[in-house]
Amino acid sequence: VADRGLNYGDGVFETMRLTNGRVVRFERHLARMTHGGERLALGVPDARTVRTDIDLLIREHKNDSGVVKYVVTRGVGGRGYRGQQLRASRIATLHPAIPDDATVKARWCETRLARNARLAGIKHLNRLEQVLAQNEWSDANIGEGLMLDTEGELICATAANIFLVIDSILVTPDLRYGGVRGVMRDSVIESARRLGWSVEQRAVWPDELPRATEVFVTNAIRGIRSIVQLDAQQWLHGPFAKRLQTECADA
Amino acid sequence: VADRGLNYGDGVFETMRLTNGRVVRFERHLARMTHGGERLALGVPDARTVRTDIDLLIREHKNDSGVVKYVVTRGVGGRGYRGQQLRASRIATLHPAIPDDATVKARWCETRLARNARLAGIKHLNRLEQVLAQNEWSDANIGEGLMLDTEGELICATAANIFLVIDSILVTPDLRYGGVRGVMRDSVIESARRLGWSVEQRAVWPDELPRATEVFVTNAIRGIRSIVQLDAQQWLHGPFAKRLQTECADA
Repeated sequence: VADRGLNYGDGVFETMRLTNGRVVRFERHLARMTHGGERLALGVPDARTVRTDIDLLIREHKNDSGVVKYVVTRGVGGRGYRGQQLRASRIATLHPAIPDDATVKARWCETRLARNARLAGIKHLNRLEQVLAQNEWSDANIGEGLMLDTEGELICATAANIFLVIDSILVTPDLRYGGVRGVMRDSVIESARRLGWSVEQRAVWPDELPRATEVFVTNAIRGIRSIVQLDAQQWLHGPFAKRLQTECADA
Repeated sequence: VADRGLNYGDGVFETMRLTNGRVVRFERHLARMTHGGERLALGVPDARTVRTDIDLLIREHKNDSGVVKYVVTRGVGGRGYRGQQLRASRIATLHPAIPDDATVKARWCETRLARNARLAGIKHLNRLEQVLAQNEWSDANIGEGLMLDTEGELICATAANIFLVIDSILVTPDLRYGGVRGVMRDSVIESARRLGWSVEQRAVWPDELPRATEVFVTNAIRGIRSIVQLDAQQWLHGPFAKRLQTECADA
């Protein structure tokens, strides 16, 4: 109960896809967690420690697929915001696999994301905005909610990054003021460039959605899912998303 | 480790002053926690439950003064931002008393507060900005850091609200986009009004500080402390703060 993760959300986390006993994109997850830890001046453990923790977890559960969640907090410390030099806490847990869907229906969230460049991109433990956003709906047919920031920029879905295809260009929010820099987002951008496609990371506004020929969301657990419906708007599960689903497969 | 407080900062908390076996301003703390819980749709326990928890804590520790911290989270729930109907977690802890100081030296923090009306005023568990701000300095002579929001408005100190005395008017940020609505802040405002003083809750900008004849910070644990130094600026521990220290005493 004295852990700073609980008291202040003072930490970072990763949720990783476990397939056939292998953590998919482990190196990318580790790199993001390390980078986030550096920005928050947390002591993120080294690759070998993280790997050993996860191996132990998998062996213990005798499970070879699912979702591995790994949390690192600043540690167990006294009351007060200032984090002294503490030993980081490490928490590894295993969760059931999630069915793979190629498409998803989405809605708009009313909850806005605050803008703070200092925390933008980091997968930290301050996630109340996402909690409030997901609590806005209970219809199980709706798989995601899109979020604007307080200035009205389109940033992401509640638990995924977002891409639009506009004039055959892949467009995604640049996350300079908010959102999480997704492992799958990076993977999609790299794949697209390898394919010779144009990619723009920039401010994206919701009035651009009608011009998009495809819209899809990405995260490390669920991969790439085309948004086929957003309230009254509809899109096809199109060629860009399909090709990227193949390019970014687990293998 | 599955508590939503740890994983998402999905909860609220209070830190209360314990003096002679009595929790000072308990009703105000409870009201704020309940209000915050309602805004986040958490199941905050009722007054009797909170009181019983705290009484038990005090008896256990055989301590009649110090700081009582009470945390309520949405509860222990599955992975994912959406909070199902859960039983709230309650965590009560007792911490050492803090010396009473009438004055404090302060500095500016570089870490900015994001603006989000949805979370403004609530003492929730997403406190990374405060953690980063307090980590900006280590000089033990500096007791507080003042924080601006991302638009440059003066909002608060890292763990206190702030008041300026300008033309004999008590001025304090209105907290419409950020900051915590402090129990002591409310108490100061009520006392000032009882004394017939003018109080303005409004947007406050840092360039107003040179016009202030007194500046003081308030929180429930440390009470009212005059800022006597802020980098190169200096103020006296003046008559407004002194009078309010008497008015808002624990008794």
